[in-house]
Order: sequence, then structure tokens, then C-alpha cells
Amino acid sequence: MSQDNADTHSGHKAASLLVVGSVALDSVETRTDRRDEVLGGAASYFSVAASFLAPVKLTGVVGTDFPQAHVDLMQKHGVDLAGLEKVPGRTFRWAGRYSADFNNRTTLDTQLNVFQDFRPKLPAAWLDSEFVFLANIDPTLQLDVLNQVRKPRFVACDTMNFWIEGKRADLGRLLERVDMLLLNDEEARQLSGLGNLPAAARAIRAMGPKAVVVKRGDAGALLFHEGGVFAAPAFPIETVVDPTGAGDSFAGGFMGWLARTGVTTPAGIRTALILGSVLASFSVEDFSLDRFRTLDLHAIRERFSAFADLVHFEKIRI
Amino acid sequence: MSQDNADTHSGHKAASLLVVGSVALDSVETRTDRRDEVLGGAASYFSVAASFLAPVKLTGVVGTDFPQAHVDLMQKHGVDLAGLEKVPGRTFRWAGRYSADFNNRTTLDTQLNVFQDFRPKLPAAWLDSEFVFLANIDPTLQLDVLNQVRKPRFVACDTMNFWIEGKRADLGRLLERVDMLLLNDEEARQLSGLGNLPAAARAIRAMGPKAVVVKRGDAGALLFHEGGVFAAPAFPIETVVDPTGAGDSFAGGFMGWLARTGVTTPAGIRTALILGSVLASFSVEDFSLDRFRTLDLHAIRERFSAFADLVHFEKIRI
Repeated sequence: MSQDNADTHSGHKAASLLVVGSVALDSVETRTDRRDEVLGGAASYFSVAASFLAPVKLTGVVGTDFPQAHVDLMQKHGVDLAGLEKVPGRTFRWAGRYSADFNNRTTLDTQLNVFQDFRPKLPAAWLDSEFVFLANIDPTLQLDVLNQVRKPRFVACDTMNFWIEGKRADLGRLLERVDMLLLNDEEARQLSGLGNLPAAARAIRAMGPKAVVVKRGDAGALLFHEGGVFAAPAFPIETVVDPTGAGDSFAGGFMGWLARTGVTTPAGIRTALILGSVLASFSVEDFSLDRFRTLDLHAIRERFSAFADLVHFEKIRI
Repeated sequence: MSQDNADTHSGHKAASLLVVGSVALDSVETRTDRRDEVLGGAASYFSVAASFLAPVKLTGVVGTDFPQAHVDLMQKHGVDLAGLEKVPGRTFRWAGRYSADFNNRTTLDTQLNVFQDFRPKLPAAWLDSEFVFLANIDPTLQLDVLNQVRKPRFVACDTMNFWIEGKRADLGRLLERVDMLLLNDEEARQLSGLGNLPAAARAIRAMGPKAVVVKRGDAGALLFHEGGVFAAPAFPIETVVDPTGAGDSFAGGFMGWLARTGVTTPAGIRTALILGSVLASFSVEDFSLDRFRTLDLHAIRERFSAFADLVHFEKIRI
């Protein structure tokens, strides 16, 4: 990680950012191309996306088959892997296929492998982490991690239909303790039982999270919190290559900015969500985490400006 | 129409705005409610929505069964109905049903009735109309109207899957002559044969329109034109009652603002699209055109401000 990343523009040191989640080998098919067993997993996308803004500590598990090149990539981005266990067995694998317009995804295969028996144990030096992201894993594991952190300043989590249906009670206990839940529109409807998104978000906020972010893919994201509603657009990308990990990159950009600035006011959260959209927009431009290999703060700055222009209109008098 | 509407804030008189399209009797079912044979049709929604911003001239056709109360409503909003023919027969009818979350609509019945033999003939005084909206009807009729207008300043049109499939050549001739095409995402994909929306918009612009607006329902609208891309958000409405006519109200707010200000620069078009989103957001709050009965410029101003807040974020240095 460069000095430019580790220190923020305002001169203060970025706060500590911890993530727990999957590190995986993904096999992805699109209409025109495919990749086999490339670096994937929510925590991988999150960490490298966030690393452009703040240093990240990753806790997760991989098998002995996990390529050193992937470890090298994450370390090159300053991701602290002291919490990434390597255990006997095979790394978590996921395989999926996208429809031609990327609007539908079919999961072809999921192998939990070493993730099956994963019990996260944070290194002692990480127990004072301030910003915590609990990526999409079993809510009991998310709670496990949260219980280990002494006094987090801001906790956000993701989840999915599988846990909403199968681990509702554990998820409920988790939601009482997080500041923000990020989930997609279908998950928001499933969790709340309500079709209307503002109504769904209101119901979910009543379960605990002060803020709910509904991710809608190429329709952007909606933030519902005490400061009202904020619509973060998605950047129209003409050459989408692989949408895998866009939501996790979004979370990475978001949490990375919060940790970088330490500002969790409503205004700060809005800006952080745009950084989330920025990182997500880069993520889909190539397979796996490949777009991040050549990304830098200059390109992030330029796209942030492009987002500002994307939604700009004059505040004229009617 | 009040003086407040007829004259614009800048003191100059609003330009003339002409619309051709359907005036209908709609029967609408939602999960919780229904309305039978209420005022509907693209030109009706367009006209009354636009009337809050500029005077509108409507050309269309109704049957002898068309209730006088609907005529009265439109006239109360200052809509000039000199071009609305009343002919022997029944008015155009449409019936549809929405899914619980309003994301799907099933057409239950369509009766063209008097629309079958409609040949629009503009009143002589309307031939100098400056702003023209060709709502979704047979492209040969849209061309008929366009051929009668001497020197339009800005022409926008809508279309639908039925014409894209069945009247492709006529639609192509029309597109060569319009400044802007408004259509929904599925129609954009169908017309271009491309799944990616920015790519689809690029292909459609090559067919003629300098600008393409892709309407995405509650995900807002995207404008693609020489000035780049603009994302107009949809306002998150917790109590959607009836989405019928939202797209036509959007077009009405958009064209009404253009006619009111006479400004067709890229910046002016952005602002106009927000006014479109504002009118669409009101339209869905009640059945038929009922929300417009109590709407006023004050409420429009307030929601315009709410849209500005909805997408606002600080342009900080990264």
C-alpha cells in the first residue's frame, strides 16, 4: 500500500477496517467468455476495493490449494492477512453463469469445503478494530466475529436469501447489533415480506440497523436512514465483463471511505456510498479482481467526478 | 389554467406544446383495489401533467361515450382540446392488472375502437407548434402529425414493443426526424438488439434521435445524448397506488418544462427530466389522473427540492 492510501487527504491516519467473509475460487461463464478458478469471494473483493482508501484486515479461511499468487495480490494491496487461516482441505468454490444481459445469474456449483468448519478467531491486535464489515456468511459466524471486537465504531453487514430463510433467528440477533445492513432488493423484500422498497427498508430498520442500503445492481443503491433517503446511482458501463463481486466491491469502497475519513454523519455516509458505487463500477469491467490490478486513486478520483456529473442538474427556481 | 402556469418565472411566455396520442377509458386492478373505465391514455396523462408548466394542445380521438367530466377536467387544466375529435363509436379502452409489487403488468383487454380509423388533422392554428410530443401510437400516425407541423423546435416521441416488432420501417422513418426518443428498458433492448443499455442507447441514437431517454420505472431514467449521460432518479414512493401513466406523466413534465423555458441545452434537458420525474412521482400516488386534481406548483416545487436532496452528495476531494 502506498503512503497515499494509508494516510487520508486530511492528514489523519485512517481508522482500522476489519472484514470477515469468504475467500473463494470462482468459475464464471458469461455469454462471450469464461474464467476457471479465479480469485473470488466477498472478503477478497471487499478488501482489495477498500484497500485503495484505507488499510484492511481480512479474516477468513482458505485451503492448502489456495494459490500463493492470490495471497501476493492481496498483500500487494496492503491487505493484512494475519487473520486468513490456511487449513488442510480445499478452498471454497463457487461456479455460476450469467445471462447475456447480465440480469440473471445461475449458480452452477457451490462447495463450502474448508468454510464448512470455519470458526473465525481474530488476532489479538485486531480486537480494537473500529470499522467492521461482516460479509455474507452464516450469521452465527458474523456474530462470532462481532462478539470478539471490543468497541466497534461502525458495523455493517451483508446477508443473502439462504440465511434469511434458514437462519432467521440468528440473523435477527445480528441485526440488533449492526449500524447498517446492505442487501439487494429481492433480499429486502424477502426479509421484510413487503414488496415496496421504502416500506421494506422501514420494516428492516425496525429490526435494528439504523441504516439500510438496498443494492439494485445497475439501477444503483438506495440508502434509508435517519437522514432520509439517498439514491446512489450506478455508473452506466457499456462494456460489463463480469458483475461478480460488484456488491462486495461496493461495500469495500463504502467502508473504505468511512474508515479513511472517520466521518459517519449522514453526509459522510452519502459520500461513502458514492465511493462504493465507484469501486463497484470498476469491479465489473473485468473478471475476478483483475480491474483492481491496474486501478489507482487518480482513476477513482476521475470516476467520482463522473458520478457527480452523472446526477448533476441545476437547482433552478420553478 | 392560472396565470402562474401560463407565464413562466422568467417572464417570457411559454412556447406552444402539442401532443398526439391516446385518450382512453382504463380499467385497472391492483392487489388491493380497482377502478373501472376511468380517464386514461397517454395523451391525457401527458397533457394534464404538462399543464402545470405550460399550456398544452391535444390531438386525439374519443367516441360519443366519452364522459363530459373528463373533458371538463382537461379543460380546467387549460388543455386546448380543439384537436380532440369526437366521432361515432366507443372510446379506446384498456384494461390491466398489476402484480402485488407493481413490477409486472398484465394487459387484460385492449379495444382500439374509434382509434382504429383515427387520422389526426391539426387545427390550422396549431401548425406552428414549437414543441411536439408524439405519444405511443402507430408510427404512421406519429409521422402524419409531424408532417403537418411546419417548423417544430423540439420533437420527442414514445413507442412500444408492438410497433417495434410490427411497424419497424415506419418507426425508422420517424426516428430519423425526432430530437428525442423516450422508451423503457425492454423496448430499448428490443429496438437495438443489445442487452446493455448504454450500448443500446448508442445504437438507437445512430437511428436518428440526438437524445435517448431510457425509462426504468422505479429505477429512474437514463438520458444519453451529446452531453454525455444523465441519471434522473425516481422518487422512492412508499404508497404507490397505480403506476399507469407514469411514463406519460414523465414525458409531460419533461416537455412542459422545455416549453415553459424554451431552453433545450443539455443543462435545460437535465432539469426538464427531473420535472418529468417529479410529475411521474405524483402520478403514481392515485388512480387515473386523480392525483393531479389537487396538485399545484407549490407541491411540484417542494418535490423538485426533494429530488435535489435525494441525489445530493458533497463534492469532496479524494
